[in-house]
Amino acid sequence: MPAENNPPAIVLVRPQLGENIGAVARAMSNFGFTDLRLVAPKNGWPNPRAVDMAVGAGHIVEAARVFETVPAALRGVARVYATTSRGRDIEKRVISPEQAAQEMCARANVPTALLFGPERTGLENEDIILADALVTIPTSAENPSLNLAQSSVILGYEWCKLTGVDVARPAQEGALASKEEMQGFFDHLEGYLDALDYFRTPEKKTVMWQNLRNIFIRAELNDQEVRTLRGVIRDLYKRRKA
Amino acid sequence: MPAENNPPAIVLVRPQLGENIGAVARAMSNFGFTDLRLVAPKNGWPNPRAVDMAVGAGHIVEAARVFETVPAALRGVARVYATTSRGRDIEKRVISPEQAAQEMCARANVPTALLFGPERTGLENEDIILADALVTIPTSAENPSLNLAQSSVILGYEWCKLTGVDVARPAQEGALASKEEMQGFFDHLEGYLDALDYFRTPEKKTVMWQNLRNIFIRAELNDQEVRTLRGVIRDLYKRRKA
Repeated sequence: MPAENNPPAIVLVRPQLGENIGAVARAMSNFGFTDLRLVAPKNGWPNPRAVDMAVGAGHIVEAARVFETVPAALRGVARVYATTSRGRDIEKRVISPEQAAQEMCARANVPTALLFGPERTGLENEDIILADALVTIPTSAENPSLNLAQSSVILGYEWCKLTGVDVARPAQEGALASKEEMQGFFDHLEGYLDALDYFRTPEKKTVMWQNLRNIFIRAELNDQEVRTLRGVIRDLYKRRKA
Repeated sequence: MPAENNPPAIVLVRPQLGENIGAVARAMSNFGFTDLRLVAPKNGWPNPRAVDMAVGAGHIVEAARVFETVPAALRGVARVYATTSRGRDIEKRVISPEQAAQEMCARANVPTALLFGPERTGLENEDIILADALVTIPTSAENPSLNLAQSSVILGYEWCKLTGVDVARPAQEGALASKEEMQGFFDHLEGYLDALDYFRTPEKKTVMWQNLRNIFIRAELNDQEVRTLRGVIRDLYKRRKA
């Protein structure tokens, strides 16, 4: 997990709405980023709307640093990725969020920044020129435009996926029933079905009984579930009030 | 490009804020989804705030269909993925958004739905039980909670990344039973078990019945298998020679 301790800085260039800054801070916190830098926020700073939107990420908003220019915000940074929508005429490598995350993880010790442009217009060429690569998020041609919050979620998510930061684990599973327990259930059910002449003829039985058992094998039952099913078929068969 | 024409339906269960519904619609449009279904939206429907937030996706908001219950919203759907945060005690497969997208692409012709819970509480066990798998988005332990808009962006993004990519197909499968057929089987079985007083008390029934249904949901039954199981329980119950 090379990058775990070195997430990139997030640099918002001339952001307008405090809400969006707060939403970015929240996404940062969701995916393990901490360093927020603002270049010339249009509605001034601090901005109470940013705090409102930064659920669980108030500390990131409070610690945000403000700069007048992009180069000032990038001081000390050695590698810059600029997020853009498709179709820039500057000759730069264009990579996916996934590729960007892979590159950042592979160079975890290189101080890195992710640059996001203003809401309406995106980054200007003067900003883009500073980047080592452009990151474009694949979207539908019908409605390709993502907002700042959405873009930061996706970049954060791809980074988090790779860094191994405390990834969700599958729910605890009960022990799978043993083959013996399964066979006990099958014998039990087969006894009832034979008594009812369910299979009608021995020739039909082979395939029918295979298919029926297969349903329960596929379900990967645990031992409690096997006991439950045995109770169900017994009660059904005996038509007995429990 | 197997899945290009068959994006999953997005089902928002008891969503509260129109803003969030609009943000989800926007994300749907960004990533090529079209079918939005709302279950019992808390602030009523239509909701003008949804339209305001649905930049470029007004048509999705307008075409959204409203249902009273989750099963009603899932009519005609054969495969359900439920988004949850970590730590559910229902025994289900837990997969990543990426895995979910891969599975959806591999079964592009299977009518599929993605289930999202209410903003504060997430999906209830009664909803989750209907799912074939749970989808959990990896997040930082520091601030693991994503909002509806963020979650839908990530699921849409992963799906969009893969469509147009040739994904390996699973072995030939019989048509998965629709959720309606499954419900028919469950109603059938529940009728018998209630008649036998199998569950004993209403308090016990909730969990017992969830666990029992979950066995059959996990088995991913096809429609022939559902008919077989209905025949088995009927014959057992009626103790009738076939």
